[in-house]
Amino acid sequence: MTAKNVKVTLARRPTGWVQESDFRIVESAIPDVGSGQVLVRNHFLSLDPYMRGRMNDSASYAEPAKIGEPMVGGTVGEVVKSNSEKFSPGDMVVGFLGWQLYALVDRGIGLTKISTKVVPATAYLGAVGMPGVTAWMGMTQIAEPKEGKTAVISAASGAVGSAAGQIAKIKGARAVGIAGGKKKCDYVVEELGFDACVDYRSETFAADLKKVVPRGIDIYFENVGGKVLETVVALLNPFARIPLCGLISQYNEVRPHGLDNLQAILTNRVLMQGFIVSDRLDIWPAALTELGGWVAAGKLKYRETIAQGIEHAPAAFIGMLKGENFGKQLVKLVV
Amino acid sequence: MTAKNVKVTLARRPTGWVQESDFRIVESAIPDVGSGQVLVRNHFLSLDPYMRGRMNDSASYAEPAKIGEPMVGGTVGEVVKSNSEKFSPGDMVVGFLGWQLYALVDRGIGLTKISTKVVPATAYLGAVGMPGVTAWMGMTQIAEPKEGKTAVISAASGAVGSAAGQIAKIKGARAVGIAGGKKKCDYVVEELGFDACVDYRSETFAADLKKVVPRGIDIYFENVGGKVLETVVALLNPFARIPLCGLISQYNEVRPHGLDNLQAILTNRVLMQGFIVSDRLDIWPAALTELGGWVAAGKLKYRETIAQGIEHAPAAFIGMLKGENFGKQLVKLVV
Repeated sequence: MTAKNVKVTLARRPTGWVQESDFRIVESAIPDVGSGQVLVRNHFLSLDPYMRGRMNDSASYAEPAKIGEPMVGGTVGEVVKSNSEKFSPGDMVVGFLGWQLYALVDRGIGLTKISTKVVPATAYLGAVGMPGVTAWMGMTQIAEPKEGKTAVISAASGAVGSAAGQIAKIKGARAVGIAGGKKKCDYVVEELGFDACVDYRSETFAADLKKVVPRGIDIYFENVGGKVLETVVALLNPFARIPLCGLISQYNEVRPHGLDNLQAILTNRVLMQGFIVSDRLDIWPAALTELGGWVAAGKLKYRETIAQGIEHAPAAFIGMLKGENFGKQLVKLVV
Repeated sequence: MTAKNVKVTLARRPTGWVQESDFRIVESAIPDVGSGQVLVRNHFLSLDPYMRGRMNDSASYAEPAKIGEPMVGGTVGEVVKSNSEKFSPGDMVVGFLGWQLYALVDRGIGLTKISTKVVPATAYLGAVGMPGVTAWMGMTQIAEPKEGKTAVISAASGAVGSAAGQIAKIKGARAVGIAGGKKKCDYVVEELGFDACVDYRSETFAADLKKVVPRGIDIYFENVGGKVLETVVALLNPFARIPLCGLISQYNEVRPHGLDNLQAILTNRVLMQGFIVSDRLDIWPAALTELGGWVAAGKLKYRETIAQGIEHAPAAFIGMLKGENFGKQLVKLVV
């Protein structure tokens, strides 16, 4: 346990690709715990694609991260001091405490106590956390997978995509993943149980995808955008449904690629629905209960890439945006 | 009444812009009426944007028009001979009999008798026909207009757009049209009762549109695509809804423009739904009843551009694709 707080703050807003120099590592004293306050020592930080959007100054569904303040992010940690009746030292809690070792929380608002007996602490940042609920929301509220349907999932080995494909399978659909490289594709099929997976980096990607969706594509859980999106759209069936969850391939582009083949959305009567998991806090309890049950039963598997030490968070974040991680990207804050 | 049948057939499939030479005017004998058959003399032919798609050979929601066969299209006409108990000479009927003066219909299948006492015959090809039901379906089944919402409608003076905007108004929403030129815009506001209308041909189009949607855009009834779509998407509110009805500005482009700003669909959690009115034959009766009532009550107004003579159908069709018509484009087949 370090005697100081360490934060990663946003030093400047990036144009195009994020650089490590867009962040700053700052040390400060561990804050005193005032009346009603709870001090949390964060163990793990979640790194997620949405954070790239928060680095911009543009209006979006959430406030931009502030220059000089810690970057925003989900965390799992331990209560170390508490002046609130609701929390005691030793409680494990999930929160949104940002890229920092210690955080002070007034009355513990926004903290959720977790049990790590059946589900490991890190899963609360992944399959049984925001990414899992995102997959659950897109699949069960928008995509409607069922027997006879073919669901394609991009970023299929990632935190959201891996859960989305497994949920499609649980609901009886055929699940086809798209991922970067043979290693990830093998994992998606052999460990996660998808019916097939194709490598978007391959020169034969379009033909490879066509081959594994002989009955076309009914559902496309979209995480990436760009060339992958165009390739999938060309294979959509009538009345296909696209939960639009992310466009990670375009987040660092100064001139993002959108969708050329809009005509296919019209002629195939496709539903495309952008969604953000924080809009539907009402469904979180049901989703988390179901996800936790699946993880405990071994039906919902996941993999983690864990960077060691808060000072490596910026590099790990940039690596994730490039697809260098494998599964859910986390940072173990103190090593 | 001519003694011969005249048809406009598809001579070849266009690449890029349609030309008159893609069609052929063909004369033939008026067919004999066999057992159970009904002979209809068409009075009016409907010209609609979807016909451009049928001229292509590509797979779509409907079979392509066939080379050497009459172009497909909605018609209103009069039964002149009948060997079916269900129809008698003099009956006025709506059908899908194509670009021709006479058509023979086995057992009258697909023909609907109409009354022209309250609603004029041509309205059954417009406000109380396929275009009206299209507007009704997009607005009531997808867009959900209501008080407090701002609905923007492109091709606002056209057959579908004019009905869509008036339905939005009937449902309590604010309706803002987009049309080509001051004359159409004046008509949309002064005669159809939209709250505002902006000219997409103006150099200040984007600024003009922004000015008339001070609370952003909640609904975009899309008929045109291209630059107009990009301009609207930049002004969408969170949870906006886009019934995707047509992309007429791109139908003759060899490389159509899609949507650059897909990011806005994601961050604003927009629903975009392509739709085709023929998918929902179940809603036609209710829609036609409501539309007929609105027309009879003077709540749903429309304008028509009527080309005179079947031989002018190709030029009128090309003119419509360029926006030269004003309101619903029809052809009076015999003058």
